[in-house]
Amino acid sequence: MFVKYLKNFRWENVFEKPYKTQDNSFFNVKRFEIIKGKDIELRYFEIEKGGYSSLEKHEHEHIVIFIKGRGLVLIGSEIFQFEPFDIIHIPSWTPHRFIANNEDIGFFCVVTSKRDKPQKLNEKEIEELIEKNPRLKEII
Amino acid sequence: MFVKYLKNFRWENVFEKPYKTQDNSFFNVKRFEIIKGKDIELRYFEIEKGGYSSLEKHEHEHIVIFIKGRGLVLIGSEIFQFEPFDIIHIPSWTPHRFIANNEDIGFFCVVTSKRDKPQKLNEKEIEELIEKNPRLKEII
Repeated sequence: MFVKYLKNFRWENVFEKPYKTQDNSFFNVKRFEIIKGKDIELRYFEIEKGGYSSLEKHEHEHIVIFIKGRGLVLIGSEIFQFEPFDIIHIPSWTPHRFIANNEDIGFFCVVTSKRDKPQKLNEKEIEELIEKNPRLKEII
Repeated sequence: MFVKYLKNFRWENVFEKPYKTQDNSFFNVKRFEIIKGKDIELRYFEIEKGGYSSLEKHEHEHIVIFIKGRGLVLIGSEIFQFEPFDIIHIPSWTPHRFIANNEDIGFFCVVTSKRDKPQKLNEKEIEELIEKNPRLKEII
């Protein structure tokens, strides 16, 4: 299967899918399924300036390749500033959130096809993260 | 884990690993392991102008994101010309080869961490591919 790149971070015959059932845990997130393989999948996410993804954790891993814009990513209790072509690995059960604090951002995200449902962090878990890194208070 | 992009398709603390034990089935191929997760892995490959990867097949899938240069890829009996940000899926047991026919090329390749060993195509399989698509004669 060959997926042709068009321009401006869009691909031929790849259309936006709902990111999640709407709730208040995320904001301004677009999701595109590019490849749905038997064992591995590739998605592209875009978050508009001011937006952020859910603060969540799950058993399945993520490999993320940033390709558009500069922003922030929370991995565990650490915050990283990313630029295009920076790459991250989010191991099992590590809390994470993507934040478009300054401009629109876009990134590829690789997952296994069989995977568990993400879990939101509860109040206690959020408090524990902030205890480890008080800077997080502003972004979670 | 955060892997910082440097420039010219290189990342901090990511070093070249041997692509394969040397034989005559490939030429001018560099391999970089960027992420080795529990279930999924991300590698970056670079092939110098005039080079090509092994013509092979295997049970495990590939998701490939081209990021550097224009070149050719064989998927089954089809040849595609690719440009940066084109994306392909190579399903189980589909023969494939990457060819830097005109300039240096570079691409990300996603695989599962548990995977089988690639198998080279035998003479009969190569003949069958060429029968399906005579254009292949020039590149395999």
